[in-house]
Amino acid sequence: MNSFGTIFRLTTFGESHGAAIGGIIDGMPAGVPIDTGRVQHELDRRRPGQSEIVTQRNEKDRVRILSGMLDGVTTGTPIGFIVENADQHSSDYEEMRHTFRPSHADYTYTTKYGLRDHRGGGRSSARETISRVVGGAFARQTLEHIGIEVYAYTSQVGPIRVTETHEVYSPALIDTNPVRCPDAAIAEQMRKLILQVKSEGDTIGGTVTGVVRGCPAGLGDPAFGKLHARLADAMMSINAAKGFEYGMGFAGCELRGSQTIDPFKTDPDGNIRTASNHSGGIQGGISNGADICFRVAFKPVATLLREVPTVDDRGQATILKARGRHDPCVVPRAVPIVEAMTAMVILDAYLLNRCARI
Amino acid sequence: MNSFGTIFRLTTFGESHGAAIGGIIDGMPAGVPIDTGRVQHELDRRRPGQSEIVTQRNEKDRVRILSGMLDGVTTGTPIGFIVENADQHSSDYEEMRHTFRPSHADYTYTTKYGLRDHRGGGRSSARETISRVVGGAFARQTLEHIGIEVYAYTSQVGPIRVTETHEVYSPALIDTNPVRCPDAAIAEQMRKLILQVKSEGDTIGGTVTGVVRGCPAGLGDPAFGKLHARLADAMMSINAAKGFEYGMGFAGCELRGSQTIDPFKTDPDGNIRTASNHSGGIQGGISNGADICFRVAFKPVATLLREVPTVDDRGQATILKARGRHDPCVVPRAVPIVEAMTAMVILDAYLLNRCARI
Amino acid sequence: MNSFGTIFRLTTFGESHGAAIGGIIDGMPAGVPIDTGRVQHELDRRRPGQSEIVTQRNEKDRVRILSGMLDGVTTGTPIGFIVENADQHSSDYEEMRHTFRPSHADYTYTTKYGLRDHRGGGRSSARETISRVVGGAFARQTLEHIGIEVYAYTSQVGPIRVTETHEVYSPALIDTNPVRCPDAAIAEQMRKLILQVKSEGDTIGGTVTGVVRGCPAGLGDPAFGKLHARLADAMMSINAAKGFEYGMGFAGCELRGSQTIDPFKTDPDGNIRTASNHSGGIQGGISNGADICFRVAFKPVATLLREVPTVDDRGQATILKARGRHDPCVVPRAVPIVEAMTAMVILDAYLLNRCARI
Amino acid sequence: MNSFGTIFRLTTFGESHGAAIGGIIDGMPAGVPIDTGRVQHELDRRRPGQSEIVTQRNEKDRVRILSGMLDGVTTGTPIGFIVENADQHSSDYEEMRHTFRPSHADYTYTTKYGLRDHRGGGRSSARETISRVVGGAFARQTLEHIGIEVYAYTSQVGPIRVTETHEVYSPALIDTNPVRCPDAAIAEQMRKLILQVKSEGDTIGGTVTGVVRGCPAGLGDPAFGKLHARLADAMMSINAAKGFEYGMGFAGCELRGSQTIDPFKTDPDGNIRTASNHSGGIQGGISNGADICFRVAFKPVATLLREVPTVDDRGQATILKARGRHDPCVVPRAVPIVEAMTAMVILDAYLLNRCARI
Repeated sequence: MNSFGTIFRLTTFGESHGAAIGGIIDGMPAGVPIDTGRVQHELDRRRPGQSEIVTQRNEKDRVRILSGMLDGVTTGTPIGFIVENADQHSSDYEEMRHTFRPSHADYTYTTKYGLRDHRGGGRSSARETISRVVGGAFARQTLEHIGIEVYAYTSQVGPIRVTETHEVYSPALIDTNPVRCPDAAIAEQMRKLILQVKSEGDTIGGTVTGVVRGCPAGLGDPAFGKLHARLADAMMSINAAKGFEYGMGFAGCELRGSQTIDPFKTDPDGNIRTASNHSGGIQGGISNGADICFRVAFKPVATLLREVPTVDDRGQATILKARGRHDPCVVPRAVPIVEAMTAMVILDAYLLNRCARI
Repeated sequence: MNSFGTIFRLTTFGESHGAAIGGIIDGMPAGVPIDTGRVQHELDRRRPGQSEIVTQRNEKDRVRILSGMLDGVTTGTPIGFIVENADQHSSDYEEMRHTFRPSHADYTYTTKYGLRDHRGGGRSSARETISRVVGGAFARQTLEHIGIEVYAYTSQVGPIRVTETHEVYSPALIDTNPVRCPDAAIAEQMRKLILQVKSEGDTIGGTVTGVVRGCPAGLGDPAFGKLHARLADAMMSINAAKGFEYGMGFAGCELRGSQTIDPFKTDPDGNIRTASNHSGGIQGGISNGADICFRVAFKPVATLLREVPTVDDRGQATILKARGRHDPCVVPRAVPIVEAMTAMVILDAYLLNRCARI
Repeated sequence: MNSFGTIFRLTTFGESHGAAIGGIIDGMPAGVPIDTGRVQHELDRRRPGQSEIVTQRNEKDRVRILSGMLDGVTTGTPIGFIVENADQHSSDYEEMRHTFRPSHADYTYTTKYGLRDHRGGGRSSARETISRVVGGAFARQTLEHIGIEVYAYTSQVGPIRVTETHEVYSPALIDTNPVRCPDAAIAEQMRKLILQVKSEGDTIGGTVTGVVRGCPAGLGDPAFGKLHARLADAMMSINAAKGFEYGMGFAGCELRGSQTIDPFKTDPDGNIRTASNHSGGIQGGISNGADICFRVAFKPVATLLREVPTVDDRGQATILKARGRHDPCVVPRAVPIVEAMTAMVILDAYLLNRCARI
Repeated sequence: MNSFGTIFRLTTFGESHGAAIGGIIDGMPAGVPIDTGRVQHELDRRRPGQSEIVTQRNEKDRVRILSGMLDGVTTGTPIGFIVENADQHSSDYEEMRHTFRPSHADYTYTTKYGLRDHRGGGRSSARETISRVVGGAFARQTLEHIGIEVYAYTSQVGPIRVTETHEVYSPALIDTNPVRCPDAAIAEQMRKLILQVKSEGDTIGGTVTGVVRGCPAGLGDPAFGKLHARLADAMMSINAAKGFEYGMGFAGCELRGSQTIDPFKTDPDGNIRTASNHSGGIQGGISNGADICFRVAFKPVATLLREVPTVDDRGQATILKARGRHDPCVVPRAVPIVEAMTAMVILDAYLLNRCARI
């Protein structure tokens, strides 16, 4: 399945070294002004080659919007878009045709489909996320139109973590450093660790924290479409994601109910609010109006700039050494992907919620 | 949305204190012999009142299978089923009509729908999981028919955790203690902790580990239907779930790629296998034939047997004291729910995978 | 697939001679007052045994609503319902276990599933429509709540047809005769024809006309979810349906564009309207505010009260003679099914349309 | 919704005068050799300007396949494709911005979305079918790979009809004349009628007959996904379609059961077959192995080369005269669209049927 969402629904295509990457956004509401420059800006944030700590591939990744807009406003018909694959060196990958890279998708794709596009990881390449960023950019501008803000940041690289909850950090600081961590001092530590790991031909993992501010209460469904289940599905669909938690998450397992319930109070304007937010903005699967906050774990990238023993598709032992340009840490570039997937989940839930009452 | 799955698809209905709980299993393959006694047995495992550490509600929860079988074999038509709600004390809940319990769904349901069924939590009650257990029991017997085994166990209660990976534990030991932990000594520590917490009118969280053994390689989709994303969606749809991780999960964030890649090797029978399993049996979103292993975090139950300050639906402060029977720790009873949801995800992916090649 | 609809979604189960027939209505908006007596009334209209021209099976068909309502109002959670199968004579059907009735589903079910429930047609029985009528009754009351009216009537039996378009007939007259034709004189001709056919042990076909009045403009989607495509899908899912047409339908094939376009005009209130309605209330797949009008063809029932040559499941020739109670003409009893399916399609499109604009 | 299908699923985008038309084919099975020249050939069949009886727009309509294939074989990942819109004269349509063409989608789109792309009909243009033809070409080659043949032909133009059932006609003759009618003499009558109608600035309707040969028994679902309901949905989603019937269709309404049941017989090879095919190859919603045969009604095109009175978007009366190039009869060009939609329905049902049994 290459579609995501129920009403606002992104369908994607494209392999790393095919002709193009692209997608279709269905269910885009009519009447939303879209700044296509900002769509391109989101793609630029995703792009490799932005700093010394990410891949140096010089991909241009220019998006063409092919339909669904007139005079800068959405028309309600689907948004088709493509990004041509410019920087192809398919022959670089010929040796990969019969070799299974450890902890990549080579073996599983071959087992599932009987063949695979071996060039640059094919569909399993991180380039697949280009389409998500475009879809997310449309969703995000729509959410802003209705007063909902989505952002994400790097909250952990290896053992280095941010020390505060999201409320403490300004989202405006996230893009002021290449790590995309809003705490400058911690960001610098993370940057140094990534460079060190890179110098060793190794890679490292980390986490991204996602936040939704201004989300109205009522989004999400009681049983199977719980808002956090949709977010989990969305986040775990990103390459290299290994875990998801929201609110107090795994840490809450060690605590007691008396420590973790969020008491209700009435604010001076007469609105009912929670005094704390262990719930992460979602109760019973439905947003409660508080900030939605979650965390996604990303594994260390599996491509090492070292010799690695593996097998080929006949089961014969062989040695693999990655060439080319690879990220030592996927986390900084995962930030715009987490934002994109979050925006799509929230907009979809927002639209679905219009049908909850007569 | 009250449906789960694509081909094998469970749709459910029912409130805690309505007439009945039930569901429809669509996409159940024809020709599977089903032991309805074992379906009931799974329901009995879910039922409260089984030990001193879980709720003492004496629910009978007898399932009636209403369609889709003939002479003990599935016919390919949908399986309708209901469980009548016998043990209703709706009047117990009259005081709840206008009161929002902290960290429950009362406020969010009321905001979303404009009203809610306040009796016993309505649709947000844990009784909703009855339907999942029935659906899971059909899926599980189908998986066994094709040689795939699913199980789960309690791996953490508060700060007490199992010390070994799942390979060390025998699934046969899981149900030998009320905590459903396969390590008897640790189970006893967990049991004591739960009793202590209960005696204080408090509650505590924990984790459940889920395992799939014998899963063929090839299940799951590359982009949005990644097998672990479906599992995450499934697990996060269970009441009180706060986090999901698979393979090395969040712990992998602190590690390096050189520590976490799973080298391929060829076993004596010529089969390609991974030498380790940091991937948790899934690579690139697709099962690789190794054990699938994941962990789900459950928060402490929000219903405390203490006085708790809250507000009513007009925003006025009030005091709530839960009456009746409530679990001090949801984790032991979550075990069969995790198993049920897992079985449904795996069977659905198994059926979908039949369409991957011509 | 046993579900129908996108937002308002009915899922059904049940065989003719199983324990019960039932379903789940998902996506029922909260806040709709539902008269369950009227739901039962729709079921009574569907029931056999109402007159000499329909089957004399004395089915009681009492519906139990199991969830999703509180104090007579929908809560937004799914509506579960069942109708117990009271009047079972399974042994009547033992001889059918290995015999394929001509133009029934016996052969195709057996080929598809490897087995079938032979008792009374199993899932292919007209009793399956019970669930549709219940789903339709909820949809219909919701539509009335927002000012949309749905009705249907018998417009042809064998060669006897109504002579006027739907605007001429009062829906109040439909149920004044057993044929459900609003023209009393033509209804009487139809009734006589059906009785004559019945006396010969034969059956006869006909058509039902469906109408939606008060439908707002804007329902339906441009490409694949055209409103008339959804109606066609819905109608063709009814047992014995062989054709669907809307507006001028097949007759329009013989005409010219100059005869069939619907000119726009502005009415005295300044509203844009069409001067004629060859379009059947739908243009470009989207309702235009005029009456939606369509026609469904039903074949003669395949069960004859005569000896019929056929084969058994080993391919051996045999003779079949239907016993029991069968309709000589399905059309009068199809009327409430057409209404039910129409109501569900329109409500679903109405809810979906809420997401068309920001 | 701009997607069609469950497993084999086409999603489309594109307006008449936007940058491009295109789509994504999801669920394309891996391992199918695809002749892209034949995909282009199907597009060429759809293209206007092929003869004097169809539009003279000189569209090139070259398809680019962007993903999902390697070395001429499908890989199981989605097929992205686009067709650039080369022949744009958007300024031709400026006067249409505020005018509602009768019996087109102008008014309903504007009502639904609050605005519309007025250039050449936007999304409601027949160019939208380009994507369907590409999707259908992939489905068709896959079906041929497994021995299933799909074709369609013009069976009626105005009052002129073919006189025989489909078995009599050779599909090889369909494309030997511009009308796409396999009876050369009748085709010539149809051609003359279309030319006459064209000379009068008028248009005319007709029907297309669709056929599936070699379809295995077992495709389709019992209740809501009946194979003919899916075909009806597919056909009614084509622009200008007004009706659908299969097997004996509307004509069967006048007949008796004794005239229309299809007796089973055993052929010399021991296979069970029907002696006649009033059922149109589908019984109980499931294919029975006989030829599937249906008919689709198309209305006269609503664009007349005459002055037509209408209103603008403020409700003011105005006169419209179409300029440019328009089809006097849509039926010959609808033939490849009917084939494409049929192929997609059958392949989807074929894949779904793999999940019917364990």
